[in-house]
Amino acid sequence: IEEEVAKLLKLKAQLGPDEGKQKFVLKTPKGTRDYSPRQMAVREKVFDVIISCFKRHGAEVIDTPVFELKETLTGKYGEDSKLIYDLKDQGGELLSLRYDLTVPFARYLAMNKLTNIKRYHIAKVYRRDNPAMTRGRYREFYQCDFDIAGQFDPMIPDAECLKIMCEILSSLQIGDFLVKVRAEQGWEGKVGPGLSQEKVLCRGNSSPSDQVYQGSRKEILFSLGLGSLQVNDRRILDGMFAICGVPDSKFRTICSSVDKLDKASWEEVKNEMVGEKGLAPEVANRIGDYVQQHGGVSLVEQLLQDPKLSQNKQALEGLGDLKLLFEYLMLFGIADKISFDLSLARGLDYYTGVIYEAVLLQTPAQAGEEPLGVGSVAAGGRYDGLVGMFDPKGRKVPCVGLSIGVERIFSIVEQRLEALEEKVRTTETQVLVASAQKKLLEERLKLISELWDAGIKAELLYKKNPKLLNQLQYCEESGIPLVAIIGEQELKDGVIKLRSVASREEVDIRREDLVEEIKRRTSQPLCIC
Amino acid sequence: IEEEVAKLLKLKAQLGPDEGKQKFVLKTPKGTRDYSPRQMAVREKVFDVIISCFKRHGAEVIDTPVFELKETLTGKYGEDSKLIYDLKDQGGELLSLRYDLTVPFARYLAMNKLTNIKRYHIAKVYRRDNPAMTRGRYREFYQCDFDIAGQFDPMIPDAECLKIMCEILSSLQIGDFLVKVRAEQGWEGKVGPGLSQEKVLCRGNSSPSDQVYQGSRKEILFSLGLGSLQVNDRRILDGMFAICGVPDSKFRTICSSVDKLDKASWEEVKNEMVGEKGLAPEVANRIGDYVQQHGGVSLVEQLLQDPKLSQNKQALEGLGDLKLLFEYLMLFGIADKISFDLSLARGLDYYTGVIYEAVLLQTPAQAGEEPLGVGSVAAGGRYDGLVGMFDPKGRKVPCVGLSIGVERIFSIVEQRLEALEEKVRTTETQVLVASAQKKLLEERLKLISELWDAGIKAELLYKKNPKLLNQLQYCEESGIPLVAIIGEQELKDGVIKLRSVASREEVDIRREDLVEEIKRRTSQPLCIC
Repeated sequence: IEEEVAKLLKLKAQLGPDEGKQKFVLKTPKGTRDYSPRQMAVREKVFDVIISCFKRHGAEVIDTPVFELKETLTGKYGEDSKLIYDLKDQGGELLSLRYDLTVPFARYLAMNKLTNIKRYHIAKVYRRDNPAMTRGRYREFYQCDFDIAGQFDPMIPDAECLKIMCEILSSLQIGDFLVKVRAEQGWEGKVGPGLSQEKVLCRGNSSPSDQVYQGSRKEILFSLGLGSLQVNDRRILDGMFAICGVPDSKFRTICSSVDKLDKASWEEVKNEMVGEKGLAPEVANRIGDYVQQHGGVSLVEQLLQDPKLSQNKQALEGLGDLKLLFEYLMLFGIADKISFDLSLARGLDYYTGVIYEAVLLQTPAQAGEEPLGVGSVAAGGRYDGLVGMFDPKGRKVPCVGLSIGVERIFSIVEQRLEALEEKVRTTETQVLVASAQKKLLEERLKLISELWDAGIKAELLYKKNPKLLNQLQYCEESGIPLVAIIGEQELKDGVIKLRSVASREEVDIRREDLVEEIKRRTSQPLCIC
Repeated sequence: IEEEVAKLLKLKAQLGPDEGKQKFVLKTPKGTRDYSPRQMAVREKVFDVIISCFKRHGAEVIDTPVFELKETLTGKYGEDSKLIYDLKDQGGELLSLRYDLTVPFARYLAMNKLTNIKRYHIAKVYRRDNPAMTRGRYREFYQCDFDIAGQFDPMIPDAECLKIMCEILSSLQIGDFLVKVRAEQGWEGKVGPGLSQEKVLCRGNSSPSDQVYQGSRKEILFSLGLGSLQVNDRRILDGMFAICGVPDSKFRTICSSVDKLDKASWEEVKNEMVGEKGLAPEVANRIGDYVQQHGGVSLVEQLLQDPKLSQNKQALEGLGDLKLLFEYLMLFGIADKISFDLSLARGLDYYTGVIYEAVLLQTPAQAGEEPLGVGSVAAGGRYDGLVGMFDPKGRKVPCVGLSIGVERIFSIVEQRLEALEEKVRTTETQVLVASAQKKLLEERLKLISELWDAGIKAELLYKKNPKLLNQLQYCEESGIPLVAIIGEQELKDGVIKLRSVASREEVDIRREDLVEEIKRRTSQPLCIC
C-alpha cells in the first residue's frame, strides 16, 4: 500500500501544486479594463484640460462614495434602472453602485441642506450595459460633471454650461497632433504650422467639407469632428406632445422613442411609437413634422409664431427661455456652434428644462475610410425637481449641469497611439544615477539619496554592478534625459560626470553643484507627448 | 359616494404628493462619507505630497477596475476575507469590490505577463469592517500604493520603499502649521519661525520628550508624532515559530496573534495562543521571549548569533537580508528612524519577506490631553509569491511595496480645521466680473467670456442686476482677490475698474490691458491655506 501511495503522491506532484489554477480565468470583469501607464498618461492629459476649465469657471470640487443606498437611486433613471449594479445583501443596508454623478449630487445637496453651489466631480460610474469597448463603451467609466445649483436669474447658468462644453471640446486637442475638434459651422481646432495633409470631413447638419491642411509632420493621427452640439428643452417636447395628442401617461416613453432619432430613421422611430407603444399614426405624424426640424435662433422665433405650439404654456416658456439662451450664447461668441434640434430628447427622467448634447465624429486618418461615429461625448441639462425628491419637505433646488464622457476620447487616442507605436513618456525621471565601474553601489545609493532629498526625480538600476551600457540603454528606453555617472576617478576629484542622453555630451560637475545643474537642465516643463 | 371620494382625495392632497418620502433615510452608506469642497482641499494637498514623492522615485501610474472577479480575491487575505464586499449575482460573472490594491496589481502583472515595473496606484478600497469614522476608519477609503516588481539584487528596492515611507511621512506637514511629523529618535518636521508654543510628546520606544517651540502663530493645530517605524521579516517569524515548536499548520494563525501585540499586552496574546488556538504554554513562552525584543541593527547581529535561530535556514536568510537592508538604510540616512521589532507580523497572508509598518501618534494641541493613537498610516513588505498564484504556469515575479493610509491623516486635519473654523479657499477664482449699475448683464457676459478665453479664472453673480455690495461681499466670503467693475462711464472710456479686495484700492485699466494686469497681480502660486 505504501508503495502505491508514494506513486500516487509522485503523480500528484507532477501535476503541479494546484490543478485548480489551470481553470482560473485571468481577466478583468466584463466591460471593464485596466489603465496601463501609457493609457494613464493620455487620461491625465485629458483630465488636466477638463479640470482647468472647471476651475476657470470658479467651481469647487466634491466626492461621494462609489455606492449609495439602493433606495437613493430608485425611481430616478426611468427605463435605464435595470442597468444598475446592486451589491449582495451581506447583512445591513442594501447598496448599489452609482449610475451617474447627478443623483449623488442631488442627494448631497439635500442631505447638507445646500441651496447654492457650483461644483465639479470626476469619478467612475457603473452601468450593466452592453459594452463595446473598442468604441469606448464600458461598464465602468469616468464622468466629469460640472453643475450649478441655486435659484438664479434665468438662463445665465445654463449659458455658462454650454460655454464650458464648447471650451472643453475646443481644447481637447491633446496636442494638435492627437485630437482636433471641429464643428459643423466653422469650429476648428488650432492647426499648428507644418502639419500633415489631411481631410477634415464634417457630417451632421452641415454639408461635408473637404478643407485640406498642408504639411509634413506625420503626427496627425486623426481628427475628431463635432458632429453637432444640439439644444432643446423638455418643456418644448412636452408641449409638443400635448398639442400633437399624446396621452399624458405616454410622454416619457414617447420621449424615449424620439431620443433614438440620432441613430434611427424617422420611419423606424414612428414604427416603434405606433407598433410597440400604441400611438395613433396621425399623432405620430404630427410629432414627425416637428422633430425633424432643426436650426438656430430663427427656428425658435418661428416656433414662437406656431399657432398651436405658442398656445401651450409649457412650450411657450421653453421657447422663451431658449430665445434668451441664444442671446447669451451670442455674447459668449458660441451661438453659431449650437443648433436647436427638436429631436434631441435625452434618456433620463430627471430633466425639466433645457437639454443639450455634443456628438463627435471621428474623421478618418486615411482617405476613403468611413467617418466613425464616436457618439455623445458631452451632455446635460436642467433638472429642477431632483433635489426636491430627496428633501424631506420637498424643497426644490434648481440645478443645471453637464457631463463629459471622456472614455470615448481616451479610446480613440489610445488606439491610434497603439497603431503608430508612438512613444509616450510614462515617468518624469530627470536623471539616472549610474556607475562606470563595479563596486560602486554604495556611492550610487548615497548620491541618489542626496538627489531625492533635494527634490530631484532620480532612478538607479537595482543591481549591484550594472554595466554602463545597460544603464544608458535604460535611459534611451524610458526617456530619461540625463545620467549622473560615478567613477573612481570622479570620486577622487569630487565631481560627477553629467551626460546628456540625447547629445551624448559629458561634463564633469562639482558634486555640490550637481542639484542646481540638473534643475537648470530640466527646467522646461515636462511634456508627456 | 362621489362626495366621499372628493373628501378623501382632498385629504390625500394635503398629505403631500408622496408619503413614502418621509420614511426615506437621507444618508451615505454605513462607514462611508462625502468629501465637501473643504475636505477635498485637504485631500488634494495630501495627495500632491504623496504623488510628488512617487514620481521623484521614477514610478509610473496604473489604474484597475473597482471590482474584480470574485475568484481573483479568493484565498489572498486569510481571516480578513470575510470583510470583502460581494456584488449581487445579476447574471454573468461573480464580482467583488477590491479589498486592497496589491492583489489587483499582482493580477495585472500576471495578465499582462509583466516581469518588471515600478508603479504607483491611488484609489479607493473596500472593507466591511467595523467603522470608526472619527478616527479615520472607513469602509471605503483611499490607499496610495507604490510597488517595485522584478528580479533584482537583494534589498535595494526594499530599502527604497522604506526611504519613500520616510520621505512622505516627513513631508506630510500640509504646511508647517497643520501636521508635524516627528519620530521616536529625533525625527522632526520643519518648524517655521514664529510658531506658537507647543509641546511635542513622543511615545513608543523612546522616552517622552517635551521640547518646547516658542512663537505666536495660532495656526499650529496639532502635531503627528511617528510612534514607530518598524521592520521585521516573515522568514524570521516563521523560523522563530519553527524553533519554538509551533506546528506548521498553525504558523499563519499564530502570526495573526502576534500581530495584535501593537494593541494588546503579551499576556492577552499568550492567552489567545494557548486558550483559543491550542498552543502548548511552553511553546508560547518561547515565542514570548523573542517577540518582546526590539532594537536596531545590533539586535539583528545579536540574533544572527542566537544558537537556535541561526540554525534555522529561513530565519538566517531573513536576518542576513535585514542586515543588508540596514546597511542601505544607513546610506539613505534613515537607519536611525527605523526599529527592528520581532512582534511586527502584519495581518495579510501574502507577505514572504521583509515587512514594515509606520504608526502615528497625535500629540495633543492642549497640555494635559492624552496623546491619541492614530494607528498605522503606512505599511508594506515583500510578497514574492502573489503574482505566481495568478500565472497559469506559476511563474513568480518578486514584488515589494508600500501603502499609505491617508484617511486617518485627512480625518485629524479636518477635525482640527472644523474646531478652529479655519478658512480654506475651495476655488481658485482670480477675479469677479461685477457691475456698478443696473442693466449691464450683457457687458458682464461679454467681458467674462473674454477673460475665460484668455485663461483667466473668473466668476460673476448669476443675477441680472446684482448690487455692488453683494458682489464685493461674495469676494470676501470666497476669497476672490480681484474685482473687475464695469460701469457706464468706464464703458465710455474704454476702461475697467480693477479693485483689490484686500486693500480696497481701485485703478482704471484699459480694457486691452486687463488680462495682463490680472495675470500679473495673481502670478503668486495659489495656496489653499
